[in-house]
Amino acid sequence: MAEHLVTFNLDGAQPVTVHVPTGTLLTEAAQRAGVEITQPCGGQGRCGRCAVQITSGDVRRRSTLRLTADDVAAGYTLACQSVVEGDVSVTVPPQEKIERRLTTDRVVADVQVPAGYDPKTAQTIQRVALTLTQPSMDDQTDDWSRLTTAFRQQAGIDQVSVSLPLLRRIGPILRDGDWNISAVYESAISNQQSAIRLIDVRLDEPSLFGLAIDIGTTTVSCWLVDLISGQVVAQAAEYNDQIKRGEDVISRIIYASKNGSGFEMQSLVLETINFLIKNVCDKAKAEPKDIFKATIAGNSTMVHLLLNIPAASIRLAPFVTAINHVPLLTATDLGLNINPEATIDCLPGVASYVGADITAGVLSSGMEDSEQLTLFMDVGTNGEIVLGNRDWLVTCACSAGPAFEGAGVVNGMRATRGAIEEVWINSETYEPSYRVIGNTKPRGICGSGLISLLSEMFITGVLDKGGNLNTHLESPRVRSGEHGLEYVVAWANETWHGHDIVMTHVDVDNLLRAKAAIYAGYSVLADRVGVPLESVERFLIGGSFGKYINVEKAVQIGLLPDMPWDQFAFLGNTSVKGTYLALLDRAQRDRLSEIASRMTYIELSADNTFYDAFTSALFLPHTDLAKFPSVEATLSKS
Amino acid sequence: MAEHLVTFNLDGAQPVTVHVPTGTLLTEAAQRAGVEITQPCGGQGRCGRCAVQITSGDVRRRSTLRLTADDVAAGYTLACQSVVEGDVSVTVPPQEKIERRLTTDRVVADVQVPAGYDPKTAQTIQRVALTLTQPSMDDQTDDWSRLTTAFRQQAGIDQVSVSLPLLRRIGPILRDGDWNISAVYESAISNQQSAIRLIDVRLDEPSLFGLAIDIGTTTVSCWLVDLISGQVVAQAAEYNDQIKRGEDVISRIIYASKNGSGFEMQSLVLETINFLIKNVCDKAKAEPKDIFKATIAGNSTMVHLLLNIPAASIRLAPFVTAINHVPLLTATDLGLNINPEATIDCLPGVASYVGADITAGVLSSGMEDSEQLTLFMDVGTNGEIVLGNRDWLVTCACSAGPAFEGAGVVNGMRATRGAIEEVWINSETYEPSYRVIGNTKPRGICGSGLISLLSEMFITGVLDKGGNLNTHLESPRVRSGEHGLEYVVAWANETWHGHDIVMTHVDVDNLLRAKAAIYAGYSVLADRVGVPLESVERFLIGGSFGKYINVEKAVQIGLLPDMPWDQFAFLGNTSVKGTYLALLDRAQRDRLSEIASRMTYIELSADNTFYDAFTSALFLPHTDLAKFPSVEATLSKS
Repeated sequence: MAEHLVTFNLDGAQPVTVHVPTGTLLTEAAQRAGVEITQPCGGQGRCGRCAVQITSGDVRRRSTLRLTADDVAAGYTLACQSVVEGDVSVTVPPQEKIERRLTTDRVVADVQVPAGYDPKTAQTIQRVALTLTQPSMDDQTDDWSRLTTAFRQQAGIDQVSVSLPLLRRIGPILRDGDWNISAVYESAISNQQSAIRLIDVRLDEPSLFGLAIDIGTTTVSCWLVDLISGQVVAQAAEYNDQIKRGEDVISRIIYASKNGSGFEMQSLVLETINFLIKNVCDKAKAEPKDIFKATIAGNSTMVHLLLNIPAASIRLAPFVTAINHVPLLTATDLGLNINPEATIDCLPGVASYVGADITAGVLSSGMEDSEQLTLFMDVGTNGEIVLGNRDWLVTCACSAGPAFEGAGVVNGMRATRGAIEEVWINSETYEPSYRVIGNTKPRGICGSGLISLLSEMFITGVLDKGGNLNTHLESPRVRSGEHGLEYVVAWANETWHGHDIVMTHVDVDNLLRAKAAIYAGYSVLADRVGVPLESVERFLIGGSFGKYINVEKAVQIGLLPDMPWDQFAFLGNTSVKGTYLALLDRAQRDRLSEIASRMTYIELSADNTFYDAFTSALFLPHTDLAKFPSVEATLSKS
Repeated sequence: MAEHLVTFNLDGAQPVTVHVPTGTLLTEAAQRAGVEITQPCGGQGRCGRCAVQITSGDVRRRSTLRLTADDVAAGYTLACQSVVEGDVSVTVPPQEKIERRLTTDRVVADVQVPAGYDPKTAQTIQRVALTLTQPSMDDQTDDWSRLTTAFRQQAGIDQVSVSLPLLRRIGPILRDGDWNISAVYESAISNQQSAIRLIDVRLDEPSLFGLAIDIGTTTVSCWLVDLISGQVVAQAAEYNDQIKRGEDVISRIIYASKNGSGFEMQSLVLETINFLIKNVCDKAKAEPKDIFKATIAGNSTMVHLLLNIPAASIRLAPFVTAINHVPLLTATDLGLNINPEATIDCLPGVASYVGADITAGVLSSGMEDSEQLTLFMDVGTNGEIVLGNRDWLVTCACSAGPAFEGAGVVNGMRATRGAIEEVWINSETYEPSYRVIGNTKPRGICGSGLISLLSEMFITGVLDKGGNLNTHLESPRVRSGEHGLEYVVAWANETWHGHDIVMTHVDVDNLLRAKAAIYAGYSVLADRVGVPLESVERFLIGGSFGKYINVEKAVQIGLLPDMPWDQFAFLGNTSVKGTYLALLDRAQRDRLSEIASRMTYIELSADNTFYDAFTSALFLPHTDLAKFPSVEATLSKS
């Protein structure tokens, strides 16, 4: 097969060349050449973020979606859709750098150790000092029998299992310690008479640390926990490195399903986790080898990708996972840089789109032990909803999409420096004012900013209830732009990049679809179990998305139901909190398994009612304004 | 530190050079340069086999044992004892090639499948065809739950464990098989209601094969077994590749204890085993992935080195192993090229010098279930003895050394082509005749040849009862050679290499010490339990050593006790036979664990009686001729 020379010209660097056969995609050629081209949509040609410019030669373009005719004329092409068929030179525009400043790093959560936490009974990781009999010519028992005898006689433990790598290390340690050692073990059963698993043998008594890890599609959070005191001694969060191979779970499943890419996806998230482990260890001056357990939550796709278990079936009807209750693993099985024998406990999920992050969230919310009828909602890149109380729990997922995270919106961005996070519009002049994270010039609009903006545009009449821009306003801010009608939030001279920041009618449609999916999700779920939405006593919102939004404005756009504001509670990252509880206490861990078993999953996509509810919710705040009396009152005032 | 240039000149090849720091041993330099220098004694400077010639520059010689003054003057030095302190050129003589023709390959043992073998009840490896329910929008259960449900409903199995790598493969197989698959699993408990371990999931019903492997210090034997019929479908044996790093267990422990060399020792024996696996699979047209279990025996050192568990404590008082009862492992843990999830069962040993090869040997001998008082002896590179019956079993080891395997004897060699295997001496002319394996010119003398020669020399008066050569004989064959007095078995012009083949007085001393150790071993063992040696009803000899020796001559030198010849039985490789039984049948495997627990180990080195018995046995056949009436009768006739 013919080979072609591909030359990549990078901003301020030497050109990089690579030879590839006919039919190679430009993204593949770039990967081989070690040139980074981000593909937020996973190489499907949807997002337009991988655009590059052809400066000599040409490529076959499978799709030019998201490129204008002018772009194409100027040589722009989507790298993920461009097939190399001859020698070609490509200019790669400077890639947007992901800022390392995360919303989750803004405030370190103040976590209370559960009252009455007793590591001796609650914790599965235990340590014990043992004094072994010394071998002699009269007692030539083998080392391992000597150790198990000490376990039996001094700790009341009859059966001990051990891995080969640990077995290799024991003899020299016993002798170095002059037959006095400290053993760390895992007892899965509360009664110590049963079988245990040996994790380490030490000369001195080690600290016992554990990790609570939440793998979000966007952000990975990691808490380092002292298993004796129960205290969280360090926290860190970081973007999931998989983002560069797709922003949502679907893109990542598609990417991972390509030959051999499952391993790459696993490596990417492991790199993030291992970076976080180093970070929390540095902060707390802890040794990774003293971390004997890691409890992990994440949505089902994140857990499958972490374990490099094929996730394709999650994406395709009838949407089933490979496994919901993952067996216990070790750090060596997974490749975590902690004690190699440490237990890895991946928490159980319920279904393809209701994962361990939700079961952990429910655990931390306490709703499964409450008499109050509670609605728990976790809105991240996807939206999951749980309704119930101590007697019953139902759950569903709605593919809200990542619009509220800034994706699929022209000037959308994540909640980092330069993001507009709140907007106010003057109802007479239609001139906006806004607040920017970091008090710098704005670069775009984040989720809370989008909710705020949408609400203000609606309340001030820039938008009608159908989400249409009002072209009769006396304002230069409503205009016809490249993508059709749009509202200008910031003029080019005010912004960081020198371009106008706008909200287009396409953006409005995307946001309406996202909020309608969420509203339809919880209202249909309530309907399906015959509970009026009004009877919900508590409305709990988890996920970092829910941390900064303005309830009033979220109700005004019909994202949240119109109920007294004090019934809403924002819980932050409920997934990592629940994971922390399961890490600490075997009883909580058992409760979590029960929660996963108790939750009845309802598949909304198989339900016509959902489509009707979704369609009705595509309005501001809703087709039926009677469902939003407080909004009705506001509108009548303005 | 200063670096020096070492040049290795090899026979008929380009010189090889390497830079090493001051203080490097020549053997280490050779290893770095990729030059093979055999070290049968493990680099202790005992065997003299690593002699090389210095042609320019010089080295510091730590020891010149086994080199004559002329050798040293000619530049010869022991590579394992030579320290590089300047640039040096070294000529490496052509290394003796280990011939691949093994005694164990001469005859393929005809093995009977145990009567009434029923794989359904006896075998721990099972397969079952399962039909899973198909997922639908109404049944979104995960793949793994679907599989475990099928196990519960169709095989009555409630709990299934699985490894992460296998978990990764299941989803695609279930779909390729349209939810009809064949599962292979291990049930450790005979009652199928308990937990099992999943080993493989297949589209079609696989054959079920297992391996019985005996790791001898010298020879590794491997049987491929059809676990359904129970038949041995192929056999192979090969020298243990570790030989090049030491001929006996002590040398190998010393070598393995050097930094990082444990891994090398493990790799060497794994290479041998994987070579044998390929060999038996080729012979039987079997697929390695269809081998689901391997049961392994070996002396305690071989098992430790196989697992790369530090073996140093085996060599040093008080002589304890790291572990006798090794937990079940998988082929992946170990690196065997069979199904990666296959069970690896290392059989249990009793003590440092009574390993799983002996417990397996006892199982196959049936002595532990017999009323007859039985003495079982396994003479390989070491000598192990078991005495007892169905009521009691005692055991000991005697460091006979490898003299009967040809090591430590000037013209000793293994039982391969060119070895003198039997000798007859004319009692008037003292002229010998001999038989050579392969009917070629002789190259040396193997174990059976040494026993035969020693016996003939004694019976004809070439040796007196103290093992001294008779210098008053009218024969040119008894002469004073480089190493002192010696008897010439073959003149240079008759031999393969053009040098005389002799038995020196030092060789005689070595052989007497070896046979005295064995005799003292079993006689002291009998004495310690208060059983007269004469009351032993059966004398069973295992090990390939015991397969070809002449009982009469072995009695004449006092290696075997003077009892009716029909009480002796040569059982061949009892270790691999016992391993085969334990592979096939869980009940036999349980019996083997019981044998290991029942056997009382007696440490002879802690016993003065042993030293006395050893000293008394250093004569031909013994100080007390009354113990050997048949020999006394023969001597009085001649």
